[in-house]
Amino acid sequence: MKNNQFARISADHQTVIDELQQIHFMDNEVNEASTSAAAYRLLLRKACVNVQGEHGFDTKLRNYLATPDTDLKDYLNAGEPITAEVFYLVVLQLCGFLPGDDFSMDEPLAAMKEMQLPMLEAVGAWTRAQVLDAWYLLLTTHTKDGQTFLDLLTNQGYFVPFYDLSARQKPLFFNGKSQAVFDTSKLICEVVYVESSVDSDHDGNRDLLKVEIIRPADTENGLKVPALFTASPYNQDTNDEAGAKAMHKVNVPLTEKQPNNLSYKDIAYHDEKMELPDPRSINGETKYAAETFSREYSYTLNDYFLARGFAAVYSAGIGTLDSDGIQTCGNPQQTEATINVIEWLNGKRCAYTNRTDHIAITAWWCNGSVAMTGRSYLGTLATAAATTGVEGLKTIISEAAISSWYGYYREGGLMIAPDGYPGEDADVLAIETMSRMKAAADYHLHIKDYFDMQMKKMARDMERESGNYNTFWDARNYLKKVKNIKCDVLMVHGLNDWNVKPGQVEQLWQALRDVPVTKKIILHQGQHIYINAFRSIDYTDMINLWISHELYGVQNGAKELLPNVIVQDNVIPETWTVYQDWSEPSMARETYHFSEGKLDIASTGYKVVTFKDSLPFDHFKRYAEHLDQWQRDILAEEPNDLSANRLLFKTVPVDKDMIIDGRVRVHVQASSNHSFGMLSFQLVDYGEAKRFNVSPTPIPMRKIGLGYRWREDQLREFTLAKFATPFKMISKGHINLQNRENAWKVDELKPDQFYSIDVDLQPTFHRLAAGHQLGLVVYATDFGMTVRGNQDLRYSLELGNCRLDVPLR
Amino acid sequence: MKNNQFARISADHQTVIDELQQIHFMDNEVNEASTSAAAYRLLLRKACVNVQGEHGFDTKLRNYLATPDTDLKDYLNAGEPITAEVFYLVVLQLCGFLPGDDFSMDEPLAAMKEMQLPMLEAVGAWTRAQVLDAWYLLLTTHTKDGQTFLDLLTNQGYFVPFYDLSARQKPLFFNGKSQAVFDTSKLICEVVYVESSVDSDHDGNRDLLKVEIIRPADTENGLKVPALFTASPYNQDTNDEAGAKAMHKVNVPLTEKQPNNLSYKDIAYHDEKMELPDPRSINGETKYAAETFSREYSYTLNDYFLARGFAAVYSAGIGTLDSDGIQTCGNPQQTEATINVIEWLNGKRCAYTNRTDHIAITAWWCNGSVAMTGRSYLGTLATAAATTGVEGLKTIISEAAISSWYGYYREGGLMIAPDGYPGEDADVLAIETMSRMKAAADYHLHIKDYFDMQMKKMARDMERESGNYNTFWDARNYLKKVKNIKCDVLMVHGLNDWNVKPGQVEQLWQALRDVPVTKKIILHQGQHIYINAFRSIDYTDMINLWISHELYGVQNGAKELLPNVIVQDNVIPETWTVYQDWSEPSMARETYHFSEGKLDIASTGYKVVTFKDSLPFDHFKRYAEHLDQWQRDILAEEPNDLSANRLLFKTVPVDKDMIIDGRVRVHVQASSNHSFGMLSFQLVDYGEAKRFNVSPTPIPMRKIGLGYRWREDQLREFTLAKFATPFKMISKGHINLQNRENAWKVDELKPDQFYSIDVDLQPTFHRLAAGHQLGLVVYATDFGMTVRGNQDLRYSLELGNCRLDVPLR
Repeated sequence: MKNNQFARISADHQTVIDELQQIHFMDNEVNEASTSAAAYRLLLRKACVNVQGEHGFDTKLRNYLATPDTDLKDYLNAGEPITAEVFYLVVLQLCGFLPGDDFSMDEPLAAMKEMQLPMLEAVGAWTRAQVLDAWYLLLTTHTKDGQTFLDLLTNQGYFVPFYDLSARQKPLFFNGKSQAVFDTSKLICEVVYVESSVDSDHDGNRDLLKVEIIRPADTENGLKVPALFTASPYNQDTNDEAGAKAMHKVNVPLTEKQPNNLSYKDIAYHDEKMELPDPRSINGETKYAAETFSREYSYTLNDYFLARGFAAVYSAGIGTLDSDGIQTCGNPQQTEATINVIEWLNGKRCAYTNRTDHIAITAWWCNGSVAMTGRSYLGTLATAAATTGVEGLKTIISEAAISSWYGYYREGGLMIAPDGYPGEDADVLAIETMSRMKAAADYHLHIKDYFDMQMKKMARDMERESGNYNTFWDARNYLKKVKNIKCDVLMVHGLNDWNVKPGQVEQLWQALRDVPVTKKIILHQGQHIYINAFRSIDYTDMINLWISHELYGVQNGAKELLPNVIVQDNVIPETWTVYQDWSEPSMARETYHFSEGKLDIASTGYKVVTFKDSLPFDHFKRYAEHLDQWQRDILAEEPNDLSANRLLFKTVPVDKDMIIDGRVRVHVQASSNHSFGMLSFQLVDYGEAKRFNVSPTPIPMRKIGLGYRWREDQLREFTLAKFATPFKMISKGHINLQNRENAWKVDELKPDQFYSIDVDLQPTFHRLAAGHQLGLVVYATDFGMTVRGNQDLRYSLELGNCRLDVPLR
Repeated sequence: MKNNQFARISADHQTVIDELQQIHFMDNEVNEASTSAAAYRLLLRKACVNVQGEHGFDTKLRNYLATPDTDLKDYLNAGEPITAEVFYLVVLQLCGFLPGDDFSMDEPLAAMKEMQLPMLEAVGAWTRAQVLDAWYLLLTTHTKDGQTFLDLLTNQGYFVPFYDLSARQKPLFFNGKSQAVFDTSKLICEVVYVESSVDSDHDGNRDLLKVEIIRPADTENGLKVPALFTASPYNQDTNDEAGAKAMHKVNVPLTEKQPNNLSYKDIAYHDEKMELPDPRSINGETKYAAETFSREYSYTLNDYFLARGFAAVYSAGIGTLDSDGIQTCGNPQQTEATINVIEWLNGKRCAYTNRTDHIAITAWWCNGSVAMTGRSYLGTLATAAATTGVEGLKTIISEAAISSWYGYYREGGLMIAPDGYPGEDADVLAIETMSRMKAAADYHLHIKDYFDMQMKKMARDMERESGNYNTFWDARNYLKKVKNIKCDVLMVHGLNDWNVKPGQVEQLWQALRDVPVTKKIILHQGQHIYINAFRSIDYTDMINLWISHELYGVQNGAKELLPNVIVQDNVIPETWTVYQDWSEPSMARETYHFSEGKLDIASTGYKVVTFKDSLPFDHFKRYAEHLDQWQRDILAEEPNDLSANRLLFKTVPVDKDMIIDGRVRVHVQASSNHSFGMLSFQLVDYGEAKRFNVSPTPIPMRKIGLGYRWREDQLREFTLAKFATPFKMISKGHINLQNRENAWKVDELKPDQFYSIDVDLQPTFHRLAAGHQLGLVVYATDFGMTVRGNQDLRYSLELGNCRLDVPLR
């Protein structure tokens, strides 16, 4: 077990005393205790939340070893002094570590160091001041259950007496982070309908947007709270059956495209001035909503903050159940509707209590400060909102977010499906999230015809067959407007996310370089996942520190304390390393030249090698049904049914660890035997090793409490697989051979003629361990991502003119 | 989608009116409404829990189709009559079904039938009485989310106004089932320490048992509630690391056993009179506990009932954190400690508020009636408790429970690991559940030495190497005392549970035949799982009906209404069929004779065939690491690395569906080339088909609410796999060739001599679809279950004297 905490603030002794007083650990009794051990016993007593009576408390003390052969009750009764050894032997047990299993009871200090738990290293008998300093440190230290010791006490009810603090005394910050002094059994749930500035369903009325609000009851007594706004098109349910029906066929041929001479300006999207109906006229005002709800589709990170003085606000946006409009899959109307909710929270826009009475309601309980949260499409809309510079939006925490939809559904002039969703496309996602379908009368009587028509238009505009970048995609490219961003940006992405690929966050990271806002990024080894329930990193604490600063204005040094770049190591579990940057443009690059089966430092001469793309039908069918087998065989060195369908090049084993940081560039001289073709590349780490399991492992029986008797999450962690594997894909890339210059301009491809092709693979941060080999696999049909035409295509590479440029840290 | 409800009571009109009045759907306004449509509108209004104001309600009505081209608001405004077509078109939408995806809006009645949803089939315009009858029916009907419509309203807050009912008006039953009129935000959590009648740690004091209680606040006002008691050794955490370290090696040879002449009476366990220390002397009494807790490790079925007027009681028992004693893995002391908790709940035993003050506390809030719940070890302890006939225990709901530990860790004179846990054994489980280890001082200073000694003794007594049934196992055989059972028994088991195998429940089922209690059994297609969050069966409702009757004495006809045997079909999803019995001793049997590769109706002559057991080391290693590959290859017909390590026999394709009901018996004439040996058998369904996925599929975004703003479960259902598979294992069995007579008597085995061997495979209920073939695979080493000696063993069968007896329904 290794602890990694980035959000813990070092406090001087006066701050320790002040803050311990604020949360009632420090009081006269502690101050006047006869010895430091007596003071320590009082602190322990306060932490023993669930036991009444001194004898019951004594029994609990009997559970802990103070030394390898004395229990804590006897030790304290004997009037022995508190030393670092005693204090930390108890700390380890309080934090859930077991002598024998997790540490040696003879060496608690070594164990603390080994597990990277912070400690006060004072020799001899401790003073009361040292006990208090160490107690403060303990409260901010993560336990074996992935939360601070104070959060553990919180979940046991420590802060229940604080629920009655007056609104003026709330929120309560400790170590720079807002604490759970809000009664979650009294949260107020309200629905309002924000009037947007779009009419996406063309019905002559501005689209009303259903917004769900959950706010602390203290707001009724004068407290104004910030809002965590999660814009989630999935939030009012999804149309899984309709989406499944709308899926496109992927077993279709790749076809020749007519060459064109388009330049970017020919296809650039320009903001359109839409004609907009007049706003509704207000018929009255009220402070109270007329609709509530019992359960929202929530993000557990928001749940955690509901106990800590933040409101959670959910809106599914245009085209969703109980809202107006239609789903557009990321177009500017959707962005506009998203920020309209922020404008309401910030006091600049009208909302109504229901859809017909026009009784206005303001977000009077909100302090006007908003952060956006959420993963995937949710983070995407956060990114979109940020690029408008909308007032009130102080920060976005965008996780696994799309920054340009082209890169989500396309790449290099090819349709490229997000991993795991072959056949999906922009129109499918629009249909899937068009939850107005769930209101059958609303949908069938009023919206279906128009929506169907729009979906037909979208199917044309998105040009699935050509795969080209065009006006449709340019309208859905948020990167164009990154310079407008005024809020701070905290990004999170999985280096193994082949759904929303790492390039999506890297493009945003690069585009933000010159934008004068604070930006932070956390790169983890997961796929398309949330990381707020990981044991080895204090992600939730970081967000607490961050939004306490951004939304409550607490001067906690969040911007300086949180590292700019944190990367989870891919070799050693529970290792998160701080860097100053990622994918720096000036990164040194190593060039490898291709020769048969090899990636060499020196170039070899002229040599043509060829591979086929088609498969016998039964092989084709098997691989199409079992994408995991396809993925294994396309990379495996031993002969298999795909051996002739790819070329494999490998370096010699590297003699020391090598870190690839950024985008690997592939340059090939290639030909197709037809007038069309595509190439795919996978960068591979070859070497027998126990690697991380693909998904984090839930830690059995270990739930994370998000507050006292409140919702929960499942603690998890990336663990090493039980058995070694011979390789792992690091990155990949694809290109249509007719899009050699860029994704919009189509070039002619003459059969059997060699062309120079450059492809930047998806960016990575990968440690290639000493003894491993870096490999590149070149192939065409990517069973999980491209069309699967099973055509009689053959591709050739002229190896003398092929190379790999690898950015090395 | 197919609905299967077994707990819905048909009600006459007067009952309908009475019960609708009780839950406030029926009132004067409804009674005096001008038309049946107006009454219907009022019912809908009451069901629209979260919207204030008529206009807001109107907007919600606009979401529903009343006819394919009119919404419900317009339809009701127009004063049109309510017909079955209108009512059920709306019902389908209210229940979450979507026109287009789930049904055709032109044929709502056909859809209701197709989905097996109950309906009132009255033609023409409905009267108010018919509307009310149909509304009652709707409230008891399952929605697409796997709960009744009334439960759906419950989760939206329908019963919140009922929280204030007086204790005398609670509980509230509707359709024979207790309703969620208890405020879960006010539940009272208490810890008491029951003084048991065992001293399992031999420390001279009766073991105190920590008991966690959660009870409705209404008990403070005079309501007495029954208790759902879950005895779970896992509940105070588990020692996973220590358990992992204690795992036994399985790559060890099978060895020859010394023949013996034991009869059962030689090894029978007889109850021992243990010397017992005096009870503690009581120092005082109190009504209130001195210790609470914030979160118990709960079973969601209990959570559901916490909102419905039941207390939940958890105890981990001897050897667990904050209790005394040691873990014994199922011995009589553990049973005694388990029923001691029931005795306290039933007013017949003392508990204390803490471990030292001897202040007694009674279960004054309990009506004395107890049901035990829980799966696996939890259900096992329920079974154990039932066999004592303890007073107050009215029923057990034992899920996937062990009835005799020998069959859990052994079989036929062999060590047989529960599936997925090779290397586990009784001592490992005792160590894993000995959560007193979590209190380091208590454990290391007071108990470790004694426990280590006891574990060494257990390791000897359990005779892992011989695999024989002995006194150790006889002491852990609850079947011996089934005749003492006085409570009703509801059993649940997975037909694909190879952890706690189906034989465990079948033995109990058989033993209960002559015991004068009510017994019910539900057999599902899962492995070792809970079934209370399934969409296609109303399991939770059944339990509600059952315990409302058993614990509150409600005369709801539960014993008659609930079928004796419900079996989930293994071919067609969402199909649960009622039978009168399972594995009847008198079931007709079909005999198949072995010939090379075949199972024939006619016997063939003398023919010896042979297979080996050893493997080249690399194959052995691969299979040991990838049990799924081993399991696939041992059954696969195409040649593979295990083809010579097994014999495969198959019937011709069956010409119509065939149901195997009970235990298939294998009779072989077999020899080993050594003086020891074992045989394993798998009964297999051969035939290309899309079969159920191994685990139920979570239904995305579909949580089951267990009350209003209360805990949740994840809705799930067994679905067909995306692709066809060629076979599936139905059942299996194992025998040590030296235990030909029984599991305790060891016979001599002469090398190369043929012996007659009979093995009853695990019982099943399996539909072999027309066109499929029944297969039997005979082999020796079972990589997932037996020792893996990789020895030079060869086995031969004399086919002319081999046969399979199949019980066919």
